[in-house]
Amino acid sequence: MSSADAEKYGQYEVPQRPVKLSVGQPGLNMLPLDILQKGLQYVNSVTDPRLLQYGDIPGYGGFRTSLASFLEVEYKEKVEPEQLFVTHGVTGALAFYCSLFTTTGSTVFVEEPTYFLAINIFKQDFRLNVVSIPMTPTGLDLEALEKALVHDKAPGPKFLYTIPTFHNPTSYTLSHEKRVALAKLADTYNFNIVADEVYQMLYFDSAKPPLPLCYYTDRAVSIGSFSKILAPAFRLGWMQIRSKEILDVFLKSGQMDSSGGNSPVTQAIVHGIIKSNSLFDNIEKDKTVLSSNCKELSNEVTTQLSKYVEFIEPSGGYFLWLKLKEPYTASKILEGVEDVTFVAGTRFSAYGSCDDYLRLSFSYYSKEDFAYGVGQIKKRLEAIEAENTK
Amino acid sequence: MSSADAEKYGQYEVPQRPVKLSVGQPGLNMLPLDILQKGLQYVNSVTDPRLLQYGDIPGYGGFRTSLASFLEVEYKEKVEPEQLFVTHGVTGALAFYCSLFTTTGSTVFVEEPTYFLAINIFKQDFRLNVVSIPMTPTGLDLEALEKALVHDKAPGPKFLYTIPTFHNPTSYTLSHEKRVALAKLADTYNFNIVADEVYQMLYFDSAKPPLPLCYYTDRAVSIGSFSKILAPAFRLGWMQIRSKEILDVFLKSGQMDSSGGNSPVTQAIVHGIIKSNSLFDNIEKDKTVLSSNCKELSNEVTTQLSKYVEFIEPSGGYFLWLKLKEPYTASKILEGVEDVTFVAGTRFSAYGSCDDYLRLSFSYYSKEDFAYGVGQIKKRLEAIEAENTK
Repeated sequence: MSSADAEKYGQYEVPQRPVKLSVGQPGLNMLPLDILQKGLQYVNSVTDPRLLQYGDIPGYGGFRTSLASFLEVEYKEKVEPEQLFVTHGVTGALAFYCSLFTTTGSTVFVEEPTYFLAINIFKQDFRLNVVSIPMTPTGLDLEALEKALVHDKAPGPKFLYTIPTFHNPTSYTLSHEKRVALAKLADTYNFNIVADEVYQMLYFDSAKPPLPLCYYTDRAVSIGSFSKILAPAFRLGWMQIRSKEILDVFLKSGQMDSSGGNSPVTQAIVHGIIKSNSLFDNIEKDKTVLSSNCKELSNEVTTQLSKYVEFIEPSGGYFLWLKLKEPYTASKILEGVEDVTFVAGTRFSAYGSCDDYLRLSFSYYSKEDFAYGVGQIKKRLEAIEAENTK
Repeated sequence: MSSADAEKYGQYEVPQRPVKLSVGQPGLNMLPLDILQKGLQYVNSVTDPRLLQYGDIPGYGGFRTSLASFLEVEYKEKVEPEQLFVTHGVTGALAFYCSLFTTTGSTVFVEEPTYFLAINIFKQDFRLNVVSIPMTPTGLDLEALEKALVHDKAPGPKFLYTIPTFHNPTSYTLSHEKRVALAKLADTYNFNIVADEVYQMLYFDSAKPPLPLCYYTDRAVSIGSFSKILAPAFRLGWMQIRSKEILDVFLKSGQMDSSGGNSPVTQAIVHGIIKSNSLFDNIEKDKTVLSSNCKELSNEVTTQLSKYVEFIEPSGGYFLWLKLKEPYTASKILEGVEDVTFVAGTRFSAYGSCDDYLRLSFSYYSKEDFAYGVGQIKKRLEAIEAENTK
């Protein structure tokens, strides 16, 4: 162990046992110190001291130009640097959005299930009124959404929070047709959309998803992040915003006027990484790992748990979303399961529903640990089965 | 100009003319690329990939230990790493605090005058009810504060926002005796304090200020920042929190649960800088520049403007706060002044008062520009005087 290893970068070390299939973090083999060094080299070469100044509010020009070019290659669509606003990741963007576009008690629509920590940001931190709209395997249930919009028309949601692509926790993707229809609904019912698109680029094989939601409607702010395509520790992301009106609210906020750009030094590191052409290679590497992990974990679940669960094998993202067959529930499994963790479906529901689901992450561990962890869940399910048939 | 210079790090370049004495940014000679490189070297040497992980919520242990040691030397008082919570600068801390401790319409007490961009964060972004308490040359007017507390006792302020040391815009410092009294008031009237202490270490000569407010009462969260002692582009700061109860609200927030630590990579760079023992040298250099600039600008104002203004020469910080003699007003000067900018007193007032004041920054420019800028203000005052005596 080098001296640097003793610096304690994270007390939240992920152990080998229990197998924490609850953890939605990249595995250690996806954390590219070599690529970080390329970014550092670039910053090291900068001779303009203004790099260290407060910096442009939406992110400095050189970085946004470089980010736009990167996104254009990925999306095969025009990306204007002026549409990009650099944030402290998705979380930073969500908190920033809430601070400017909501007041206490404002209604926000979310998916059921949805990213459980977003629920906490909305409910606990910003004290918003969270209303859930069900998911389907082709994404948000638009009929249910329209029903809720009609019902809640006055005053209606301040915004819809959605994870349209390789959704957390289901890994479902909103289809192109439904994106078109959602955009129409947003216009008809006059609400904005905050799209958390952190898994957008993490598709397996040729399963490239539809374009980010902001390409379907100016009412959508598309949030991207380097957390899953580079590393979480940069705490860097971006919003793509095509509405001048929405963009202006961010640009003219008190927070940005006070702070200047979000972490210009980090922007410069990532700028250097993009310039070094290492980012696509890294994404390819990550996709290979994730795709392989996904197959391994899916195989284990199919082999060991078919009697108890159903699931759709994901074509991207981080998660397996298992539906428990009757009469099994996630909370019942948790009561006695040993040496493995997962996240119970109820955590992803603003109402505490979804106890017949559980989420397993395939990002962190690999084959042997998957086999062991799934085996532990199987043991517990068998015990419940035995109890039930007593 | 090197290729890096063409990257456009900041569109907000500060020009030679007009002389923007409005700008509260460090001068280019205070932006230490050489010290940045020491931090980069450190990060370059890290071999533990967990550096790139989400990271500990209050900041990673090695960094907080290193920061605590640095602060102990400066304060000559114990600093526990467990009291420190790494933030995205002061602005990040303020927004984070508002999101967790206020709701729409909550009352916040601020100083009159106060940091104008904090007013925007409170009023515009978070829609708080901002109530102003007057300043005196020994800091906040505690009698006025108590009157307001008695008057507003139900429900009272959610918190008091104060800049106790080398206050922006006045450069006044809350005396030790008044800190003791303020702590007592906070207990008596049951309110918390958010202390923006960004200028704490920027004292001139031996004018070391009293300790941060958190040493006077657990009800105070002391916010520090690397923006003024290292460089704004790190967008890194910290809260020192001695109340377990307050700390817990931050630690258990939805935002931090989702994001992990604030910018671990930046933490690592600054960690490296602290380890290289460069930070104190940098602060000494900055204080020398600021102290000299302060004297130069003060001399210019005394020499050229004594007929029109009064002021107390600061013993630290970034700003001169000039009181205009009757009948002059900042807005009248602004109507026709040329080739110089400053911030009118009204900007620092939640009620639009203080038009008989103006703020000049001495952080960015130096001697000749000061002479020119002050000369331009003088010209304008002479013109107003001539008009008035017509």
